[in-house]
Amino acid sequence: MGKFNIEDYIAQLSIDCVIFGYKNKELKVLISKLSYGENLWSLPGGYILQTESIDEAASRILRERTGLDNIYLEQFRAFGGPDRIIGSEFRDLVRAGLRNFDSNRFDDEAIDWVTSRFVCIGYYALVDLNKVEPRIGEFEEFLKWVSIDELPNMTHDHNKIVAAAHKALRQNLDEKLIGFNLLPEEFTMREVKELYEAVYDREFPMNNFQKKILGLNVLERLGKKFTGAQNRAPYLYRFKK
Amino acid sequence: MGKFNIEDYIAQLSIDCVIFGYKNKELKVLISKLSYGENLWSLPGGYILQTESIDEAASRILRERTGLDNIYLEQFRAFGGPDRIIGSEFRDLVRAGLRNFDSNRFDDEAIDWVTSRFVCIGYYALVDLNKVEPRIGEFEEFLKWVSIDELPNMTHDHNKIVAAAHKALRQNLDEKLIGFNLLPEEFTMREVKELYEAVYDREFPMNNFQKKILGLNVLERLGKKFTGAQNRAPYLYRFKK
Repeated sequence: MGKFNIEDYIAQLSIDCVIFGYKNKELKVLISKLSYGENLWSLPGGYILQTESIDEAASRILRERTGLDNIYLEQFRAFGGPDRIIGSEFRDLVRAGLRNFDSNRFDDEAIDWVTSRFVCIGYYALVDLNKVEPRIGEFEEFLKWVSIDELPNMTHDHNKIVAAAHKALRQNLDEKLIGFNLLPEEFTMREVKELYEAVYDREFPMNNFQKKILGLNVLERLGKKFTGAQNRAPYLYRFKK
Repeated sequence: MGKFNIEDYIAQLSIDCVIFGYKNKELKVLISKLSYGENLWSLPGGYILQTESIDEAASRILRERTGLDNIYLEQFRAFGGPDRIIGSEFRDLVRAGLRNFDSNRFDDEAIDWVTSRFVCIGYYALVDLNKVEPRIGEFEEFLKWVSIDELPNMTHDHNKIVAAAHKALRQNLDEKLIGFNLLPEEFTMREVKELYEAVYDREFPMNNFQKKILGLNVLERLGKKFTGAQNRAPYLYRFKK
C-alpha cells in the first residue's frame, strides 16, 4: 500500500460502524480483533475522504468490510468527548504499532494524525449475516460475530456506541420495518418473531405478533416450507419490495 | 477581539443549533441575519474547542447566543455532503467579509479554514422564548424568532437541518416529555394542547388530550388562573421536577 496521505481525509473525524447480524436467535455485532496488542477489540471504522459525503464514506467502509453493496444503514449519533483521544496506554500501543509497520506508509505526521483526538459519527448497518464475507482492515487480525450480550470490553467508547445503536435499532424496528434486512430473503413468521424477541429481549405471544405483522401488509406469502410433516409446515414469507 | 487561532478548534467540524421557542400558538426558530450580504440567513452555530466535548461545545454556543444555562438540548444528526463546502458565491462573500474585517483577527490561513468544507453536527434546543436575550455572533446583524412555517431560504443546508430537527422533536415530544421546556413555568392545559398542536400541525380534542397528559402523572396542579370569571377559570399546572 502506498503512503497514507492525511490531506485526503477530514482530520479528527471518523466513522464507526455497528454492523448488526442475526443468527441462532441472537442479535450479533461484527467486531475486529486489533493487532496492536493482546485482547484489543474495536468496531470496524474508517475516515472520510474530502471528496465524499459522510453517508458515502459509511457505505464505502461497510463495502470494504463486508463485500456488500446496498446495505441498510442509518446514522444514529455522533460521539465526541475530549477524552475520545485514544487513551494514553492504547495510544502508545498504536503509535508503536504504526512505527514498526512501514514508514513509507505511515510517516511521523501520519502517526500524529491517526492518534489525535477524534470525534466519531456512528452508523449502524443491518445485514444478512450469511451473505457477509468479513474482510480485515489494516492492523486487524480477524473479524468476529459476537452476540450483543457477550461483547468484550472494546477500545475507546465502543461499548457505549453499540448500546446507543441498539437503542436506535429498537426505536426504528417497528416504525421503519427495517428488521427484514437482518433475515434471509424467505422466512417463516416464527423467524420474524424470534428476531423481534432478540432485538427487544422479551417475548411476543405468537398470535398477537402474527396478526400485527400481517396487518402491516408488507409481507408476501409464498408456499409452505418443506419440513417432512406437510400438515404442520409453516408458510414462508418474503418482504414486498 | 484577539486573533482567531485555528489550532484551538477542530477543523472542518461545526455545530449548528436549531433553537425552538413557542409563542402565539406557533413553533418558532431563532435565526441569524448575516452581515456578509443582503438576505443571508443562517442558524446560529460555532466550532468545537480541542478541550471540550461536542455536547459542551453545543451548551457553550447556546449560552453565548441566548444568555441561558441549563438549556434542554439534544443532538439529532450530523450533516456532511462534500457540497457542504460553503457554496461558491456565498463563499466569495464570506471571504471578502473576513478580509475586510480585521486582519489581526482573521489572517489568510484563518480565512481558508473558515471557508473550507465543514461537516456539521446538529443540536436542537427547547427554550422558554420569554427568557431568551438573543446575542449576535460575529458577522451577524441581528437574530430573529421566525415561525417554522415562514422561514426564509437559509445558507447551506440549514432549511434541511431545521426540517430534520422538527422531525426529531416530533418523535421525542411524547416519549421524553420535553415539550414543557417550551412553556413558562406555569401553564393551563389549553396551552399545553396548543403547543402540541403547533409541533404536530394537527388538532387534538381537548378531553382526550387532557386525559392522556394527566395520566402521565408528571404535572402538579396549582390554583386557578385568575381571569375575572372565577367559575370558568382554568387550572394552572406546573411540571414536576
